[in-house]
This record gives sequence, C-alpha cells and structure tokens, in this order.
Amino acid sequence: MKEIWHQHNLRVHYKQTDQMGVVHHANYITWFEEGRTEWMRANGIPYSKMESLGLLLPVLEVDIKYRKSALYDENIAIFTKIESFSPIRLGFYYEARRLGKAGSALALDKNEVKAPQGELLASGSSLHMWINKNWKPVRIHQNYPEIYELLQQKLEK
Amino acid sequence: MKEIWHQHNLRVHYKQTDQMGVVHHANYITWFEEGRTEWMRANGIPYSKMESLGLLLPVLEVDIKYRKSALYDENIAIFTKIESFSPIRLGFYYEARRLGKAGSALALDKNEVKAPQGELLASGSSLHMWINKNWKPVRIHQNYPEIYELLQQKLEK
Amino acid sequence: MKEIWHQHNLRVHYKQTDQMGVVHHANYITWFEEGRTEWMRANGIPYSKMESLGLLLPVLEVDIKYRKSALYDENIAIFTKIESFSPIRLGFYYEARRLGKAGSALALDKNEVKAPQGELLASGSSLHMWINKNWKPVRIHQNYPEIYELLQQKLEK
Amino acid sequence: MKEIWHQHNLRVHYKQTDQMGVVHHANYITWFEEGRTEWMRANGIPYSKMESLGLLLPVLEVDIKYRKSALYDENIAIFTKIESFSPIRLGFYYEARRLGKAGSALALDKNEVKAPQGELLASGSSLHMWINKNWKPVRIHQNYPEIYELLQQKLEK
Repeated sequence: MKEIWHQHNLRVHYKQTDQMGVVHHANYITWFEEGRTEWMRANGIPYSKMESLGLLLPVLEVDIKYRKSALYDENIAIFTKIESFSPIRLGFYYEARRLGKAGSALALDKNEVKAPQGELLASGSSLHMWINKNWKPVRIHQNYPEIYELLQQKLEK
Repeated sequence: MKEIWHQHNLRVHYKQTDQMGVVHHANYITWFEEGRTEWMRANGIPYSKMESLGLLLPVLEVDIKYRKSALYDENIAIFTKIESFSPIRLGFYYEARRLGKAGSALALDKNEVKAPQGELLASGSSLHMWINKNWKPVRIHQNYPEIYELLQQKLEK
Repeated sequence: MKEIWHQHNLRVHYKQTDQMGVVHHANYITWFEEGRTEWMRANGIPYSKMESLGLLLPVLEVDIKYRKSALYDENIAIFTKIESFSPIRLGFYYEARRLGKAGSALALDKNEVKAPQGELLASGSSLHMWINKNWKPVRIHQNYPEIYELLQQKLEK
Repeated sequence: MKEIWHQHNLRVHYKQTDQMGVVHHANYITWFEEGRTEWMRANGIPYSKMESLGLLLPVLEVDIKYRKSALYDENIAIFTKIESFSPIRLGFYYEARRLGKAGSALALDKNEVKAPQGELLASGSSLHMWINKNWKPVRIHQNYPEIYELLQQKLEK
C-alpha cells in the first residue's frame, strides 16, 4: 500500500497541560482524531461529507505509545497515514512530533509529505469500521463504491 | 421563590488540573452543568427523560466568578438552586465549594440541603430556554404542563 | 482605548459536538482562551514568555452569551480585543463567528483586522489579574514595566 | 498475582456525548485514569499522596478496545485491576461496563469486588513507569520501599 503522510499542525493549549507541567496523555487521542480528519479532507473524503451520506466510521481500537512530553504553546505536528484498508475496516497510524519551541509560528497543514519529521513524542494507531446511521456494518465497495474507488486509487502503488 | 439547594459531590481529576497546579477555569462550566443535571434528577425531572419527551434546555448565558482554586484530588461540592423560572426560561445559580483535603472520602449527593457549606471557590449562574427538537421555543405551561406544575409546586413558597 | 481586533481561526472538532448535534457550550470558554493567547502573541507578549518571567494571569470572571450554534467541521473565527487595562487587571472581549460551511478551508490568523465579520454565534468577556508565581497580586507598571509600556503603546489612541 | 478488582461508579455527562449520540471514544482514557486513581486510593496508596512524596507515574502505553457505546446519563462502572508490577513499572487493566439505564441511582465505589459485572462496553490497559520530580526513573523497592511492600503484600497470592 502506498504511504500517504499528511501533516496537521497544531498548537498546545493551556487547558491541555496538567500539573506535571506537560500535555495530559488523553489529549493525544483527540489529536490523532484531528490527524485522520485532516487526512481524509486532504484526500478528497471530508468526514463531514461522509456523515451526510449516512456513513459513519466509529473507533474499534486505539493504542498509543508515549515517548516524550509535549509542552505548553509548542508547535506540534500530527503525521497520519492509512495502514490498513478493506471494504469493512480502515486503520490509521499516527505520529505526534515536536516541530519547534513554544511560541514558534504555526504553518498550514501539508498533504503528501515525504516522511514525518521533528522530535517524536508519541505514536499510535486506530482501527475503524464502516457503519450506517443505524449502526449496521457497511461494505463500502458495494454501498459507497465511489468512496472505495477513491481510496483504492490513492493507496495503490 | 423557595430556595431548594442541591449538593452534588465530586472529586477533582488529574486531567482537570493545568500547569499552574490548579483546576483549569473551564472545568467549572461543566461542573455547573453536572450540578443542574443532578438538581433536576433529585427534584423529579431527570434531564434524560425531558430529552426523551422532545424537550431541550440549551444555554443562553453563563457567568462565573472565580475566588479560590480547586486542587487535584480534592473533594468539591457543587451547590445548585433555581433562581428564575418562567414558561419560557429557567435560570440556575451555583456555588463550587471545597469540602475537604485531597483524598478525603466522597459522599453521595444530597437534595434540599439548608445552605451551601465549605470554602467558596467559585459562583456562577446560567440562563436556559425551553425548546423542542426542531429548536423552536416552547411554552412549557402549554406543551408540557406536568413539568411546569411540578416545578411550580416545588418552587412556590 | 484603541480597538485591536485579532482573528483566530479554528475548526470544530468531532469531540466538541454533543448529542444535540452542535458544539457543547463549554467549548467556547476554551476557544476564548485560545483567542486571548493569540491576541497576546500577535501583539508582542506571548503568554508562554510571560509565564517564564514569573507572571501569571488567572481568570477572575467569565461571561458568555450564546446566540447560534457552531456545527461539526465548520470554520470558526474567534475575534478578540482588550476592553480594559490597568496595572493590576486586564479584560478581554470576544466574539465567536461562523466563517464558512463545514469543510471550507482554514486560513492563518490575522492581527489588527478592522472589525469582526461572519455570523455571530457567541460573545463574551473575561477579567484577569496579574499575579506572580506565589499567587500574589503584581502591579505590572512597577514589576514588569516593559510589558506595561508595550500594552500602553499598543492600546492608546 | 492476586486479582484485586476495584469498582468505580460514574455517570455519563452531557459534554461526554458527541453528535453520533454516544460517548466520544476519548472519554474512556480519562475514565480509566479515574479507575486506577480509585484503585490506588482504595488500596492504601492515594496518588495525591504519592505525588507529595515526589513520586510520579506517567503513562508509557495505552490501548483500548471498544465494543458497545455508553449513552448519556447512564450509570457506568470502571473495573480496574493491576496486571503487572515491578520495581520500575506498573500495569493496569480496565473494563468499562454498563450498570443500568439512564437515570438509575449511582452507588459508592467498592473495592475487592469478586469480578466485573454489567454489560461490557470497552476494555483496555495502561503501562506506567515510576519516576521522580526530575523525570528520572525510580526503582521503588529502593527509593520507596514502603510503597513497594504495600503493593507486594496486596498483590501476592
């Protein structure tokens, strides 16, 4: 499968710190959600549009490995790629990396970056299932062939 | 109007602290939401039941005054009462108070306590409007007379 | 006092929605915090730098008025200005406005915009006190004259 | 190792729901944190006391498997046990289970319950490292022997 890395830039907010003086570990799970949302937008399948077509993508599994701590006001990038893809499931892989010191300028997101860069803070993955509004599993190659083909074209070597 | 104070007890969680070493100020707005939810449950109108009847109660205004900081693991009580009530609006008043040191035992909530006690940390109020599922204003004495009468009986001297 | 409006752009994340299908009201208090953080950065006083000088700016009061609801994935701008300023206190005013539909492109922040634009969703204000690391009030014109003069120059007509 | 299950009861708050009408998946990571905090309090090692002794326990890894969704106002129990324990690391296992319908009464926590009960919603684990205030690894059997022995006595068959 072709690796398409998307880079989503964000700033650490005060509320995300805790009394250890670092970003609380629970924030990475929402940063990763931001990462996959922006991957999908940048690659032609905005999640909000998918929902308006009746297609939901709830989380089945998440895992996160923490290496270093993000600090207040730092400039962080979430690098996201798809690591598994089938008509019934979709899996993402993420890296949170420090791009610069507190206060450095925040740039716009970039799609199709060659490789993650910056100091690795945490990595993780999430596995999702395609379902419809009644929470029934959906085989997207049958029910949403245009989404399936778009992803397939993007991800095939 | 009769004062009915409800006491909702909660513990400060790690994620609610920030790098100043105290509870981040944004948490009080959700603590107050917990307070009014428990006021309504304790007084016969669980919010979840109200929603299942098609009645929503979104927030029009919130204000909070901060005096002292809550600390990690402390035992906090949210004291809530209704301060205004009409067929179209509902207003709550709140006090967040420190009940004990970090680690002290947490008790179950109490309804109809005489008066707030403990060290005052913050006070605030919120104003709400009755609406239906289409976000249209509702006059509850006409559309939900049983809820209106229940509140009126509770709150009249 | 001179009005300096700063425009901070943000995207509505999934976690910020609630089961009414709109952004939960508590998120505006952190959006406003992001707004004042970016006002201060854009005007030469990054909050992270202020903290490293031993100066903190906790919240004394917050009030918010809600008019319309922000929706998932929308492009929101927080417009922030200073509305009061003294050697002991600092007050901000905020407006949250809808800039575009779900999925529209997010632009970089802008400082010194002429006036807020977009559909007004909520407005609010916050009052803060200058304190030192021991939580003692500080008179910044005496203890941090360079910060006081910078703000005074920015804000005087 | 002896299994000591602790049961921490909590109520689903409105802010924890998202526009799919269920609890957003990121909340489980903080529910699990509440679970281990209460395990430690109930077994004689309150986390707040540990911190005041200069001992921190940051998260190295988290994983979560989601099976069913928690709903607004439901009564949820977090069942927590220790699944690994050494002088340098500590590992917890968690289950989030539905105890009752929306609006049902919330009971106080219970320690040393025989086994988790209720409908399984999610399970997960977290791995932690003992460190001191300078973020250096600590071997607790040398530096904090009273904590090591307390845990060892609790957990040995």
